[in-house]
Amino acid sequence: MPKPICYSTKAYSAGSASAKLGATTIDRREPGAMDVQIQILFCGVCHSDLHTARNEWGGTMYPAVPGHEIVGRVTKVGGSVTKFKVGDMAGVGCLVDSCRRCPSCREGLEQYCETGMVMTYNSPDPHLGGPTLGGYSQSIVVTQDFVLKIPANLELAAVAPLLCAGITTYSPLRHWKVGPGQKVGIVGLGGLGHMGVKFARAFGARVVLFTTSPGKTQDALRLGAHEVVVSKEEAQMQAQAGSFDFILDAVSANHDLNAYLNLLKRDGTLVLVGAPEKPMSIGAFPLIFRRRSFAGSLIGGLPETQEMLDFCGKNGITCDIEKIRMDQINEAYERMLKSDVKYRFVIDMATLR
Amino acid sequence: MPKPICYSTKAYSAGSASAKLGATTIDRREPGAMDVQIQILFCGVCHSDLHTARNEWGGTMYPAVPGHEIVGRVTKVGGSVTKFKVGDMAGVGCLVDSCRRCPSCREGLEQYCETGMVMTYNSPDPHLGGPTLGGYSQSIVVTQDFVLKIPANLELAAVAPLLCAGITTYSPLRHWKVGPGQKVGIVGLGGLGHMGVKFARAFGARVVLFTTSPGKTQDALRLGAHEVVVSKEEAQMQAQAGSFDFILDAVSANHDLNAYLNLLKRDGTLVLVGAPEKPMSIGAFPLIFRRRSFAGSLIGGLPETQEMLDFCGKNGITCDIEKIRMDQINEAYERMLKSDVKYRFVIDMATLR
Repeated sequence: MPKPICYSTKAYSAGSASAKLGATTIDRREPGAMDVQIQILFCGVCHSDLHTARNEWGGTMYPAVPGHEIVGRVTKVGGSVTKFKVGDMAGVGCLVDSCRRCPSCREGLEQYCETGMVMTYNSPDPHLGGPTLGGYSQSIVVTQDFVLKIPANLELAAVAPLLCAGITTYSPLRHWKVGPGQKVGIVGLGGLGHMGVKFARAFGARVVLFTTSPGKTQDALRLGAHEVVVSKEEAQMQAQAGSFDFILDAVSANHDLNAYLNLLKRDGTLVLVGAPEKPMSIGAFPLIFRRRSFAGSLIGGLPETQEMLDFCGKNGITCDIEKIRMDQINEAYERMLKSDVKYRFVIDMATLR
Repeated sequence: MPKPICYSTKAYSAGSASAKLGATTIDRREPGAMDVQIQILFCGVCHSDLHTARNEWGGTMYPAVPGHEIVGRVTKVGGSVTKFKVGDMAGVGCLVDSCRRCPSCREGLEQYCETGMVMTYNSPDPHLGGPTLGGYSQSIVVTQDFVLKIPANLELAAVAPLLCAGITTYSPLRHWKVGPGQKVGIVGLGGLGHMGVKFARAFGARVVLFTTSPGKTQDALRLGAHEVVVSKEEAQMQAQAGSFDFILDAVSANHDLNAYLNLLKRDGTLVLVGAPEKPMSIGAFPLIFRRRSFAGSLIGGLPETQEMLDFCGKNGITCDIEKIRMDQINEAYERMLKSDVKYRFVIDMATLR
C-alpha cells in the first residue's frame, strides 16, 4: 500500500521513557473517502497517557503522542462521509479503528475486538506505519465510524474526558443494569470515580463513594454521592458489609479488593475499571459464600459511547475539569501522580498554535 | 427451652483433630411435630468431612460426626409432617435448617441465609445444644422442610453424593444458564468435577474437562466430556484461549486461576466451587480486556436441590461411587487425599449396625 499523501501538524510528544514531552511536528494522512479531519480544540489528560509516555506498561513506540479524549471541529470530510460536515463538533475516544468483522465488532463492542483494535495512540498505524499518534496535537484524521457526535449544549472542554473517563464508567454501570432501588459503591474519587458518581446518581441508584481522603467528602456529596465512606476507617467499612448491589472500583493503585467484595450483597458484582499493576489477592470465601462476582470492564464500544454522549447532553452531565496550556503537560503529569486534580486536566489545544 | 426427649443411635466420630474416627453413640431428638426421622442407609464422603474432622478450617467442635450426603428411609414422622410418610426414601444435604425469614431464605436460597444456616454438622444445634452431628450415623432427625424426596428409579447409594457434590455443580450451571450452543469447561475430575461433566453434558453444552492427570482422559470421555485438556500442557491450554462461555472450577488445591480466565470468551464467567485455602492471585487484565467475571457459588437451596434430584431421576444421572464400610473411613480419607477415588466414597451404613 503506498503511503497516503500527508500534511504536517503541530503536536507534543515524548521522545523516550525518561524525556519530558515537548513540541514537535507530525504527519497526518490527508482524509480518504471515509475520513473526517478534526481540528482538535481540547484534549483530556488520562493516566494512560502518562503510563504510555513513560513506557510503564512496556511497548511504547517513540516518539509517542498521547491523548485519547479528543473534541474539536470538523475541518474536512472525505467524499463518502455522511455522518459529518465541515464545522460540526466531533469527538474521538480511545479507538480509531478495529477489524469490524469479529463477533465483538459486529455487536458494537469494538473495544473487545478479537483481532486487535487500533487505539488512538501507540497502536500500529495501518495507514502510515509507525505508531498511531494521539490528541496532543492540532489535528487528527479518523474514519467516520470511529468519530462521535457531540451534544451542542455542553461545555466543549468538559466533554473531552467523557470520551474515556466517561464511557469507562458509564458502560459497566449500564451493562450490569444499575438503576433505582440499588445501592452502588464507587471506589476512588478521581477522573473515573467522579464520573462514576455522576452516572450512578443519574441512573437513580443510591450512591456511596469510598475514598481514602476524608477531605473529599464535601466534594463527593456535591458531585452526587448520597454518602461517603472513608475506606481507612474499619468501623465505617464494617457498617456497610453485605449491603451493595454493585461496586465500581476505579482505583489503579494496588489495594485490598476483598474488603470491597465483603460489602456486596448476595449476587452482587464488583467491577474493576482501574488496572492495578500487581495481581490482586482474592479470597475464595467472600465469593463463594454470597455468590458474588468480580469482573472487569474496558471503556465502551462506539454505539454506547454515542449513547453516553447523548445521555450527557440530555442530562447536562460533563466532567469537572481544570484547563491547562499544552506547555503545562509535564507539570500536570506530576500533579496527577499526587492526585492533585479535580478531576481531569484538559489541554486547551489553542495554546499549541 | 427444655431439652427434648432423645434416643440413642450409633455413629462414627472424631474426638480431636489428630484422632482417627471411631464408633460412638450419640443422642438424637425424638421427632417433633414437623420432624422426619430417617434411618440412614448411605452417606457420601465429602472432602469437607475431612476438613472438619481434622479442624483444617478451624472451629470444629468435638466430638465431630461428619457426613452431609445422606439418604435413607423414613422411620417416623411428626404429627404435622405432610411431605413424608414412614417407608419413604428421603435425603438430607448440607443444611438442616436456616432462619427462614431473611431475603435469601424467602427466595429458597437457604445456603446464603443471612443470619446463619444450620449446617448438617458442626453448627450449633438449636434443639440439643452442642454441635449438629452429621450422617456418619444410623439415624437422623430433620425438620421436613430440609428433607428431600428421592427419585425411586435411581440406585440409592449413588444418589447420596448428589446432596452435596451434585447440587454444588448443578446450581452454578443453572444459575449462569449453561445450555446448548455453549462451550463449558470443568476443571478437575473429582467428586464435584465428575458431576459437573455429567450435568453440563445433560444441559446440552459442549463440555471440555481440564485435568492435570492424562490418565483420566478416557474416563472423562466416558462420563460425558467431549474433549479433555491436560492443563499442564501449555500448547493444549493455548489452543483453547478465549473460547469458553463458562468454566466451573472444582479444584480446592491452590492453582493458577488466570490460566483459566484467559480461556474465557468476552463476557464469560469462571465460577469457583472448590475453595483454595490461600487467597488467589488474579490479574486485572484478563478480566478487563474481555469483560470476564470471576465468581463463587455455594451448594444450592432446598428448592433447587429437589429440582436437581428430580432432574437426575428423569435423566438417569447418579454419581460414580465406591462403596465402603464404616470402619474403612479413616483409610478412605487417606485415599481421598491422594485423589484415589472414582469419584466418591459412599458409606454403607448397614455396616455400622
